[in-house]
Amino acid sequence: MSCKRTGKQTVKFASPPSVIASAGVVGKKEGEGPLAKSFDYISEDSYFGERSWEKAESAMQRLAFTHALNKAKLSPASIQYVFAGDLLNQCIASVFAMRDSSIPYFGLYGACSTMAEGLTLAAMSIDGGYADTACAVTSSHFCSAERQFRMPLEYGGQRSPTAQWTATAAGCALLSADGDGPYITHATTGIIRDAGICDANNMGAAMARAAYDTLSAHFGDLGIEPNHYDLIVTGDLGFVGRSIVIEFFRQDGADI
Amino acid sequence: MSCKRTGKQTVKFASPPSVIASAGVVGKKEGEGPLAKSFDYISEDSYFGERSWEKAESAMQRLAFTHALNKAKLSPASIQYVFAGDLLNQCIASVFAMRDSSIPYFGLYGACSTMAEGLTLAAMSIDGGYADTACAVTSSHFCSAERQFRMPLEYGGQRSPTAQWTATAAGCALLSADGDGPYITHATTGIIRDAGICDANNMGAAMARAAYDTLSAHFGDLGIEPNHYDLIVTGDLGFVGRSIVIEFFRQDGADI
Repeated sequence: MSCKRTGKQTVKFASPPSVIASAGVVGKKEGEGPLAKSFDYISEDSYFGERSWEKAESAMQRLAFTHALNKAKLSPASIQYVFAGDLLNQCIASVFAMRDSSIPYFGLYGACSTMAEGLTLAAMSIDGGYADTACAVTSSHFCSAERQFRMPLEYGGQRSPTAQWTATAAGCALLSADGDGPYITHATTGIIRDAGICDANNMGAAMARAAYDTLSAHFGDLGIEPNHYDLIVTGDLGFVGRSIVIEFFRQDGADI
Repeated sequence: MSCKRTGKQTVKFASPPSVIASAGVVGKKEGEGPLAKSFDYISEDSYFGERSWEKAESAMQRLAFTHALNKAKLSPASIQYVFAGDLLNQCIASVFAMRDSSIPYFGLYGACSTMAEGLTLAAMSIDGGYADTACAVTSSHFCSAERQFRMPLEYGGQRSPTAQWTATAAGCALLSADGDGPYITHATTGIIRDAGICDANNMGAAMARAAYDTLSAHFGDLGIEPNHYDLIVTGDLGFVGRSIVIEFFRQDGADI
């Protein structure tokens, strides 16, 4: 096995890349939540000054990218790769957001896992010696996601009890070979798990099995317990998905 | 700059990964073309025994994966990463094709560049020390692509003179740290170029500028001329796009 592998799904970075800057841009609802202070920009306007929600999502992602660049005092020319993706057809939010950046571009489709996927690949590109600085960026927009996956909001459909609320938010992280941390020390890549859920209004239950599997693989590969961490963050599983993951771990005898 | 970089967009692999097996699975029309002998499976049935063209595309990708595995005499368990993507919403062809493989999965969206993107990242994962064996796989299907990007075939729309024919085809390549070649020695990653073409029936012209730019970057980064290569292969630019790329190079004084 190659030297950097630690178990079936996890790799350990020889020189852990550092997150040198990050930025978050969100909509009004997200700005009213408990994380408000950690966002760089909160828009009162769900259109972000654009004429469609899809264009708004793109504007949001561009804003997050610009804020992160400013914090790191870097220009796009000093970034060797951008790893970007979103939830829309042909990942148009990302493509139009990054169109004028002139950075070598890798398009990703990982849905809720896109940010983790981007961070993993950006970290590999740096630790592997292919880049000094790389960028991971993603976005979602409640209104464009409803149109994409469920019904256009204009339809006024009733929300089911299991329905989640896709965040109107974009995030960007800049990674570098040199920096004072936080560092990306390991990456555990998930495998596809189909829980057989066919309800577009119950995405939490659909994703729960995969989240549990990936977390279990991470703990197993590293020989650690969930309480090794102060905080474990997943893509949004919602109330239903979250309780399923906790129940899976309870069956394993782990209090997560 | 990091040691493996050769110019702005190109990296050089320290230990070039080898393509140890590859497979191609195509539809009837492709099977009647000049490359017929190089395909592993030609289906007379555009549905590949499935009930929709989207499911057919997934079946095709699974077949390509299985053929490549058989040639390499490998089981899915010996592959550390799969890099997969296609043209459909949420890349469903790839996700359903790889669902039962239990291989750590990276979803890509690069449209016509997906195979190049997958080969680049798979090569990085191996040369970087994160994997011994990795897989790049992609697919497209004329009938699902027409529905996705233009009109459902049932509509019977007239084809414009610039319209291309999306291949009904899936390809899979297995890369390994050890092997007798062909080797992936360099990778040049493209940047987004919007040529301002808004006609879904003229994708060749839309892509030509990006193809020219990436090829130019490759030649420039390596200090070589187009005649360095016996064969230069791009995503399908069609008649229109191909002639635009040749014209761009002619303006640079290069006969490509």
